[in-house]
Amino acid sequence: MHELVTLPIKPGAPQGDMMGEKVIVCEVGPRDGLQMAKTRMATATKTRWIAALAASGLPEIEVGSFVPVRVIPQMADTAEITRRAVLLPNVTIVALAPNLKGAQAAYENGAHRVSVPVSVSEGHSRANLNRSPAEQIAEVARIVTWVRAQPRRMEIEGACSTSFGCSFDGRIPVANVVRVAAGLAEAGVDMIGLADTVGYAHPALIREIVRAVRAEIGPKLDGLHLHDTMGLGIANALAGLEEGVRNFDAALAGLGGCPFAPGASGNIATEDLVFMLESMGFSTGIDLDKLIATREILAHGLPAETLHGQIARAGIPKTFKAAA
Amino acid sequence: MHELVTLPIKPGAPQGDMMGEKVIVCEVGPRDGLQMAKTRMATATKTRWIAALAASGLPEIEVGSFVPVRVIPQMADTAEITRRAVLLPNVTIVALAPNLKGAQAAYENGAHRVSVPVSVSEGHSRANLNRSPAEQIAEVARIVTWVRAQPRRMEIEGACSTSFGCSFDGRIPVANVVRVAAGLAEAGVDMIGLADTVGYAHPALIREIVRAVRAEIGPKLDGLHLHDTMGLGIANALAGLEEGVRNFDAALAGLGGCPFAPGASGNIATEDLVFMLESMGFSTGIDLDKLIATREILAHGLPAETLHGQIARAGIPKTFKAAA
Repeated sequence: MHELVTLPIKPGAPQGDMMGEKVIVCEVGPRDGLQMAKTRMATATKTRWIAALAASGLPEIEVGSFVPVRVIPQMADTAEITRRAVLLPNVTIVALAPNLKGAQAAYENGAHRVSVPVSVSEGHSRANLNRSPAEQIAEVARIVTWVRAQPRRMEIEGACSTSFGCSFDGRIPVANVVRVAAGLAEAGVDMIGLADTVGYAHPALIREIVRAVRAEIGPKLDGLHLHDTMGLGIANALAGLEEGVRNFDAALAGLGGCPFAPGASGNIATEDLVFMLESMGFSTGIDLDKLIATREILAHGLPAETLHGQIARAGIPKTFKAAA
Repeated sequence: MHELVTLPIKPGAPQGDMMGEKVIVCEVGPRDGLQMAKTRMATATKTRWIAALAASGLPEIEVGSFVPVRVIPQMADTAEITRRAVLLPNVTIVALAPNLKGAQAAYENGAHRVSVPVSVSEGHSRANLNRSPAEQIAEVARIVTWVRAQPRRMEIEGACSTSFGCSFDGRIPVANVVRVAAGLAEAGVDMIGLADTVGYAHPALIREIVRAVRAEIGPKLDGLHLHDTMGLGIANALAGLEEGVRNFDAALAGLGGCPFAPGASGNIATEDLVFMLESMGFSTGIDLDKLIATREILAHGLPAETLHGQIARAGIPKTFKAAA
């Protein structure tokens, strides 16, 4: 058991004076954003988009999923996309893989990190992976064993899906989230993220679950993956931030959606998250203008998709970094 | 000088266990939401909408502005709307008035509370009221004197516009917000609200300014009026909530917009705010289903308007009040 470590916002900190504390934003648009898209983005466009995202300063990009083409046709080019993406400078390239076979493909194509989903809820686990949570943790252990035996180092992340609620099972007992996270830590992953897969979280729940999981696995609890389905995504990120989380997934233009909520937006919008973090004085290393400019590639590459995100519509206000 | 009073979220409070602490949500859609609308909502529709809002349990509704018709044609029926609204049971009816003449009209038509805007920034004050902030505080003092001399009690709120930034003047020194709030307190208003008129606030700035103003005027600092222009509205509400604020303005469907940000959304969406508050265990007294149902009236009454707000699109999740 580790000590509960919370890093609350410095009380009364003046605006823009968070001492530039680093927060890592991982762009998951090319993976989580596109897998629900109505049309398929061309490989050349995807490559150009990922390069532009990296050039805006994003430190991590999740570029695709190593899953069977029949399951998610949008991810058919993940091998090629990954091989090109890892040539980009100064960016950690992440690929999702639901099983050992996928993790092996991620490794063979040069991914810097493989993210393996484990559903906390039984219902989502069965529907998404056709395995129980315990069976999937065993698969993660097999992945760890295989990856550690390879000559090249590849990071392994365990991603706890449905940590804050499930459209099948409803509320998820905190103990179940803690148990899955502990199982992943024991399996030997490098880092563990908690995902609000269906957007059911609220700020008090974020605080409660982050604290409970951190009390069990300590700093292995690395990041949050939040959706804005109910409009609370950015507030949930703030709650996580105030609990000391310094790594957040997000998707440009809030891409993603949820199969169980037609018309709803998806992931939290990267550009709005970056705007909040930088406004509060955190340092993301991301050029917000350049990041917003990459929406153009998205608009042309996926013309049928609604682009969410407020800051791009409203324009960056004149107070942003006025003092910098 | 009063003691700094903060009421942080109970650390580690289980979900749905905020002991039902009350938070007041004031619906400002009929005023701030409609004044920017492309078309005018018919008086009969407005009356029906306000009645439906009250029936959903909203404790406070800002129903209109007593301003010259040539300035805001959408508010031409404020007198009639106010007279009808004050007949509704269990709801405080608020009307905005920029000057003594408007406050007198609010009184004569039975408003329970008059809200008087005072811009903290010189630029916005000149553009919106054609007066300096100091001149407008003097006008508030005249309103207080007049209202207190009447036989009926009417509450007076001072609303500090552009407290978190201004599209004319940019960043606003904290000392200026404190000075205007102190001036309003000295003028004798019953309560003071801070408004993010153009949506420039971020959570750290909310904390900083709420603390500074409360240190000066204590519990007279009553509420926050937040816009979602940059996508941070609900996160800003959370920051205010964590600083102990228990009164928030909001507009159904995020109506409102900003003349300086075409396409941007307006006020924070009442339904999303209520969803967050109730999910966290606060008690608003509002029936979320009934509240969301009133969007229908809005959709028919203002067909040209885009309805924002996420919870209505996504549907209330099954975890909401599942334990209740």
